[in-house]
Amino acid sequence: MAPKGKNSFTLKTPKGTKDWAGPDALLRDNIFSTITNVFKRHGGMALDTPVFELREILAGKYGEDSKLIYDLQDQGGEICSLRYDLTVPFARWLAMNPDVRNIKRYHLAKVYRRDQPAMTKGRMREFYQCDFDIAGAQFDPMVADSEVLKIVTEVFEDLGWKGNYTIKVNHRKILDGLFEVCGVPQDKIRTISSAVDKLDKLPWEDVRKEMVDDKGLDGAVADSIQKYVVRKGGRDLLESLLADEKLTANASAKAGLDDMALLLEYLEDFGVVDKISFDMSLARGLDYYTGVIYEVITEGSAPATATSAPEAQALQRSAKKDKKVDPDEDRSNDPSVGVGSVAAGGRYDELVGMFSPKAQIPCVGVSFGVDRIFSITKARMQREKNANALRSSEVDVYVMAFGGKGFTGLLKERMQICRSLWEAGIKAEFSYKVKPKLPAQFKAAEANGIPFAVILGEDELAAGKVRVKEMGLPDGHPEKEGVLVDIDSLTTEIKQRLEKKACGADAPAETPAHEPADLAQKVKDLL
Amino acid sequence: MAPKGKNSFTLKTPKGTKDWAGPDALLRDNIFSTITNVFKRHGGMALDTPVFELREILAGKYGEDSKLIYDLQDQGGEICSLRYDLTVPFARWLAMNPDVRNIKRYHLAKVYRRDQPAMTKGRMREFYQCDFDIAGAQFDPMVADSEVLKIVTEVFEDLGWKGNYTIKVNHRKILDGLFEVCGVPQDKIRTISSAVDKLDKLPWEDVRKEMVDDKGLDGAVADSIQKYVVRKGGRDLLESLLADEKLTANASAKAGLDDMALLLEYLEDFGVVDKISFDMSLARGLDYYTGVIYEVITEGSAPATATSAPEAQALQRSAKKDKKVDPDEDRSNDPSVGVGSVAAGGRYDELVGMFSPKAQIPCVGVSFGVDRIFSITKARMQREKNANALRSSEVDVYVMAFGGKGFTGLLKERMQICRSLWEAGIKAEFSYKVKPKLPAQFKAAEANGIPFAVILGEDELAAGKVRVKEMGLPDGHPEKEGVLVDIDSLTTEIKQRLEKKACGADAPAETPAHEPADLAQKVKDLL
Repeated sequence: MAPKGKNSFTLKTPKGTKDWAGPDALLRDNIFSTITNVFKRHGGMALDTPVFELREILAGKYGEDSKLIYDLQDQGGEICSLRYDLTVPFARWLAMNPDVRNIKRYHLAKVYRRDQPAMTKGRMREFYQCDFDIAGAQFDPMVADSEVLKIVTEVFEDLGWKGNYTIKVNHRKILDGLFEVCGVPQDKIRTISSAVDKLDKLPWEDVRKEMVDDKGLDGAVADSIQKYVVRKGGRDLLESLLADEKLTANASAKAGLDDMALLLEYLEDFGVVDKISFDMSLARGLDYYTGVIYEVITEGSAPATATSAPEAQALQRSAKKDKKVDPDEDRSNDPSVGVGSVAAGGRYDELVGMFSPKAQIPCVGVSFGVDRIFSITKARMQREKNANALRSSEVDVYVMAFGGKGFTGLLKERMQICRSLWEAGIKAEFSYKVKPKLPAQFKAAEANGIPFAVILGEDELAAGKVRVKEMGLPDGHPEKEGVLVDIDSLTTEIKQRLEKKACGADAPAETPAHEPADLAQKVKDLL
Repeated sequence: MAPKGKNSFTLKTPKGTKDWAGPDALLRDNIFSTITNVFKRHGGMALDTPVFELREILAGKYGEDSKLIYDLQDQGGEICSLRYDLTVPFARWLAMNPDVRNIKRYHLAKVYRRDQPAMTKGRMREFYQCDFDIAGAQFDPMVADSEVLKIVTEVFEDLGWKGNYTIKVNHRKILDGLFEVCGVPQDKIRTISSAVDKLDKLPWEDVRKEMVDDKGLDGAVADSIQKYVVRKGGRDLLESLLADEKLTANASAKAGLDDMALLLEYLEDFGVVDKISFDMSLARGLDYYTGVIYEVITEGSAPATATSAPEAQALQRSAKKDKKVDPDEDRSNDPSVGVGSVAAGGRYDELVGMFSPKAQIPCVGVSFGVDRIFSITKARMQREKNANALRSSEVDVYVMAFGGKGFTGLLKERMQICRSLWEAGIKAEFSYKVKPKLPAQFKAAEANGIPFAVILGEDELAAGKVRVKEMGLPDGHPEKEGVLVDIDSLTTEIKQRLEKKACGADAPAETPAHEPADLAQKVKDLL
């Protein structure tokens, strides 16, 4: 930080925000590409909304968390606030466009929350959300919901997580029904629901204490809630609940259970039912959910470098766990439960109607927490490989020159060679010095993990040739000193070598990521 | 707009902002991809900075335009403002990271200006900038500057503009020198420079009037300025200025002219000198430029659908102009001059030092105005083809079912076929209804220009087959009714057909844009 004084500045980004640069930015961009590809594969339309909305649009949507909304200063004109999520702007857009009756839309963008930041845990005031939502008035139950969960699995598979995640699923109607059955007064249902949602972090005793001591619930009612909300499972749990006549006598609970039955059936057809844990303690905080709700957790969610004693213990527990997953195993009791979620969402059938009663459109969607996904992916890559293998840019060729006494630097020749490489679509760079030193040019190429050097020398150029050298070849390799190539065939030669390097079995870790899919391959290779 | 009242909302986006959806969002995303590919080809590193900065970071950077900055409300804590451009945050990042001594960085992001919006002309309060900048302390003169201008040409060529643009170039040191030579007092140089910058919109008489009447410049001084600033050309102009002993006696002018000579030489090596117009009236508004400055203009900048009489006249003038460009022609007198710029930039050697004197790093860069590029590209596509050919999403296959009496809807079968398509990386969708009607399914596929239908029937399924039908085939085409395909070979069959369609000569306009490069091809096909 610069000393303050005349013309000096506090050189920092605002609290809870950060710059993204270098390998981190590149890795995150690759994660974005992977997610976007899945969204497009499922017919998603891109929607981009303004970063701020009229303040009244956001009002009354986020319950207690509304205090975390960033407001713009009143500079004369409309009163605006930064968006808090991407869901409310989507609902506002739907209400404004009554000709759109059904749509699949995706949106990758930053959202803003004036929360107490915890930077090392990826808790930021400015962070990315990647949302996919399906809106439609006349769909049959649970079809779109099951496609959203299928999308969740495709994203994590394409990211190379190889099944190492669990989708916790529950249903607001089941929760509401069981609270009614247990005797929770109507006006306490939302607040008791919030208490239940903490069961992934707190033991039942603490949650019961909150219900009874803080929220004034009758102790016997709390005890009867316990019998339900500690239960996790799959179809087995569903069958046992459907056999519970007290529960199925409640219309809300029955509707929720029927939905769950249909959902599990469809997820079977999509081949992803083994990723699901029907978890009755899952409640989700947001007010606007009305149906199925879900959260994705992974044991990898724990930070790779623990900064506190409890984190270190959690890491140890997580490390002991065998990574192999039996697809038939009920994963409900997986110790990964309790670690923060990497994606979450649910059905919200009434949010659009809050903006325009005539435009009522049921919706279901999911939001991926990219900052957390980024941290886990990066930690895995660092555990397995040297972090220096990660590059800041994706340059394929460094064009350099060398010469003896009277060396002119061959600047124009380097420019012309770069020009032909660029125009052939090859990523290339060169030194901006007229007479660069050869070691400095090699150092620049090595520092950024550039795979090939094209070396210009006056004698070779006079013979119409340049030297192509693959960087980092071991001593004794027949091409260690590079090969002479006709200038006319240089771009073809480079393209062939890049292709070979990208496909080759001996491709080193710093192979440039040309395609988003490369990321998945890379991460898969590490797992 | 919904009527106001209890629980009602003003359903709109804030003034000067808009939602991007459907074909517009897809086209803009393709423009982003094209630009990003060029930036990566030149070794650019991605940098992402927060959307707001500490207010003191932005203070004193934008001259009079500082009043256009959006401030965040003081909610207790730091005082912040939305970013006004991407250049100042980049300079702030460089000053904060003293280990980075040279870098090529790119940044595509929204910026914010509380200007009077003119939405139909792409003048927004929230708009995208796409910036590429080269920072480095020890580079030789004009090498990086010429690469930036090479990048400008690659972006517009990759967008399919086929040379239909001009890069106006000037140099702050030449301007400062000629103002000194003409006798402009030191304290008036910036304000006289601003007046000169208006010569692309106003006749000399009006600019002279501003200088003399409003800014108190001596009339004779204004007249001697005129002799210089109305001149445009290429190397010819440079030679004539270098022969002007009065001008070259001024150190600043001489330094600028030497830079220009070197720049033209390097641009020759990059093969782009024919795109340049050395335009002495170009001054650029921002305070921080210190060297070469440039703006890219195109005759296509005029809106395709004129909304006012002057616009209609401008369009007529523009339409009369022969589009063919002789690469050797001096384009300085091209009537496209005066139309707004689609990209602009220059050298700013002292901005980083404003944050941290020790971190002084010379920089040069360019910013592309994507909203304007979008408008021009869209107008061209609309002029040449049916706008309906533009799609909202990129789905390749619609999976549908039909059946007679007792038709079950084949929902699970449709889900399973979709699953296999998705898992093969094919973009596919299906109806979320249990028993959808066949016409409704065809309508959904047609409405979004989906090229293929996979049609499930109970009899065919029983025989292990489905029907693949290319949409939109003319009557009498041998495959008009589709072909029966084994389910096991469906994904292979679809992939082959998609590949053939993408490469085929008879590919219709709605061929899905799989790769960013497709955009360039598409637009090229239209020109």
